[in-house]
Amino acid sequence: MATLPLLSDEEMNPEARAVLDDIRATRGSDFINNFWRALAHDPALLRATWERLKVVMAPGTLDPLTKEMLYIAVSVANGCEYCVHSHTAAARAKGMTPAQHGELLAVIGMAAQTNALASALQVPVDEVFTA
Amino acid sequence: MATLPLLSDEEMNPEARAVLDDIRATRGSDFINNFWRALAHDPALLRATWERLKVVMAPGTLDPLTKEMLYIAVSVANGCEYCVHSHTAAARAKGMTPAQHGELLAVIGMAAQTNALASALQVPVDEVFTA
Amino acid sequence: MATLPLLSDEEMNPEARAVLDDIRATRGSDFINNFWRALAHDPALLRATWERLKVVMAPGTLDPLTKEMLYIAVSVANGCEYCVHSHTAAARAKGMTPAQHGELLAVIGMAAQTNALASALQVPVDEVFTA
Amino acid sequence: MATLPLLSDEEMNPEARAVLDDIRATRGSDFINNFWRALAHDPALLRATWERLKVVMAPGTLDPLTKEMLYIAVSVANGCEYCVHSHTAAARAKGMTPAQHGELLAVIGMAAQTNALASALQVPVDEVFTA
Amino acid sequence: MATLPLLSDEEMNPEARAVLDDIRATRGSDFINNFWRALAHDPALLRATWERLKVVMAPGTLDPLTKEMLYIAVSVANGCEYCVHSHTAAARAKGMTPAQHGELLAVIGMAAQTNALASALQVPVDEVFTA
Amino acid sequence: MATLPLLSDEEMNPEARAVLDDIRATRGSDFINNFWRALAHDPALLRATWERLKVVMAPGTLDPLTKEMLYIAVSVANGCEYCVHSHTAAARAKGMTPAQHGELLAVIGMAAQTNALASALQVPVDEVFTA
Repeated sequence: MATLPLLSDEEMNPEARAVLDDIRATRGSDFINNFWRALAHDPALLRATWERLKVVMAPGTLDPLTKEMLYIAVSVANGCEYCVHSHTAAARAKGMTPAQHGELLAVIGMAAQTNALASALQVPVDEVFTA
Repeated sequence: MATLPLLSDEEMNPEARAVLDDIRATRGSDFINNFWRALAHDPALLRATWERLKVVMAPGTLDPLTKEMLYIAVSVANGCEYCVHSHTAAARAKGMTPAQHGELLAVIGMAAQTNALASALQVPVDEVFTA
Repeated sequence: MATLPLLSDEEMNPEARAVLDDIRATRGSDFINNFWRALAHDPALLRATWERLKVVMAPGTLDPLTKEMLYIAVSVANGCEYCVHSHTAAARAKGMTPAQHGELLAVIGMAAQTNALASALQVPVDEVFTA
Repeated sequence: MATLPLLSDEEMNPEARAVLDDIRATRGSDFINNFWRALAHDPALLRATWERLKVVMAPGTLDPLTKEMLYIAVSVANGCEYCVHSHTAAARAKGMTPAQHGELLAVIGMAAQTNALASALQVPVDEVFTA
Repeated sequence: MATLPLLSDEEMNPEARAVLDDIRATRGSDFINNFWRALAHDPALLRATWERLKVVMAPGTLDPLTKEMLYIAVSVANGCEYCVHSHTAAARAKGMTPAQHGELLAVIGMAAQTNALASALQVPVDEVFTA
Repeated sequence: MATLPLLSDEEMNPEARAVLDDIRATRGSDFINNFWRALAHDPALLRATWERLKVVMAPGTLDPLTKEMLYIAVSVANGCEYCVHSHTAAARAKGMTPAQHGELLAVIGMAAQTNALASALQVPVDEVFTA
């Protein structure tokens, strides 16, 4: 259960509904995932979040699949159950193969491990890295 | 300052020195960054960490630059100062452009934000994501 | 399921039961939430935690609702599902309005985002901030 | 040292410079802290971050000091050195007293502790919290 | 639900199956917990993780129970629900008493609290600690 | 630099000074580390923190060195630079050998890695762990 009830299209106000319409149009799909239905209690926050996400995740010098995998990496490190699920699903929809998924997991696990070791050792940053 | 003194080549034992030789050979560079000099107090841990890193970061279905950017993403989320610096330097050495760096930062920032919102809302995972 | 069974009033020992009696008296309610029933396996830890919480969350130069919102902010950042739910409920009981909740979420999301950006950029602290 | 050089007003492009002009006008101060000088390498990210921050931190149903204290709480939990310093300075500038600062620290410390205990115990959420 | 289906012995390939056989032989038990059944989608990652875990958790200068309690401490701080449950169960199987569990929880809670206070205060490291 | 100036014995009030006297007496040493000098701005918080720490870290069913290593494990996972340094120094003072330190680091690194993998896979908790 969320800390706020998920709103159906009928329960949300027109400003929130307009954001969902744009999500549907942008994605070419009628499906709206729960995150947006929970955020819809605050239409201004819903709009700001969606408008920014649309810009950030659009194709650029990084392709959409790479962006989804980066999103997964951050979400895993932050322990966000919802986000790990939603962005793993999104990455698959954008073509992530099982082999790529495996390599993604291996990098995430390795990074977590050396992050911990560097933290335990409090290694000073090499001057060459900050030049 | 680290929690352990950084060891010079002369101060470490032969097993640790052999790992550094392999790092140098693999990277085609004489430079050894501080992380390995701190880890060298425990040659077995040094060897296990390096051997695994070599496998994980090798080219595969994900290219080395993508892997470095994923490493940055995890390191940022974990707040590891050393790791953010070392892997940002590594990503640049592997060709990350300023535009790619900017998009990487934007995705990391966006993910941190929606991770926090999903956590605050405790959004339940959509069934379709776990099918 | 918890890592320890939740104890009913009858199952806990008198020292733990005395703490629950004080929780009930302080809150003016018979309801005891699960956190305390899990902690009751260790009456000394239960007592120390409750005694300190009572002091910390009492009205002071910060009002109780502000304290609950601060508690939510920390709990969200730490990804604590139980704590987000329990302190969101507590904040509502203390008068948090939907508009305040929305602003709280917006600040938490913004902070998470700029925390990540500052971590990714490893921005040095301005001297003026430490004067 | 940051992962990118801090840009002076002269080194940044006009789009970034325009954002700094707005920061100065909004704050009624010529001082620009390092965060913005690091972000200025990516004017679009700089602008999006500032524009959103301006909205989120504006007075609303929560007053600006409460928002700064919430920002501190998140920044502490995320271990962001830069953010803890900059927002503690900002909270003081907005009138946070030593007594309020002390209570803020006490709540943050308490929340961190019970977050850890709830995580260690994996306490199930009470039904009443999700009604 | 996991982000990948849990594989039965029959569904995984021979390389993954061989790792499970070694887990069973090492532990002297037929039971295989879900973590390995999810990892089995990537036999190389499964093998690397298990082979390393076997070395790290073996008796050494620290006894196996101490290692399990350290594992719990890290898992709690990282908010890993699965890991808290699995390593608490493992610690009990290795003899952790209720009194030891209580003291473990008290230390974890105390550390979380002073970590937060040190982060909020940004206390500079004493020179004597780095000598 | 801390967010508050470190107070010398002469600068702090008598209540804070009394806590420092107890720290000195308990530890049998005149040295007071920076953490307490920063906390001394709020004597009540200083006292509550020290009084609790004294109880939690006292010998019990877990020995003081084990408790210090657990403290390190939590501090590493939380990325607390100050705490990692101070508790590593404390663990050495209580007899932690280089070999024990190496094993501690190995467990911390391993736990961080499997925490990340379990988070990425969102592995459901085995029923047997919650029985």
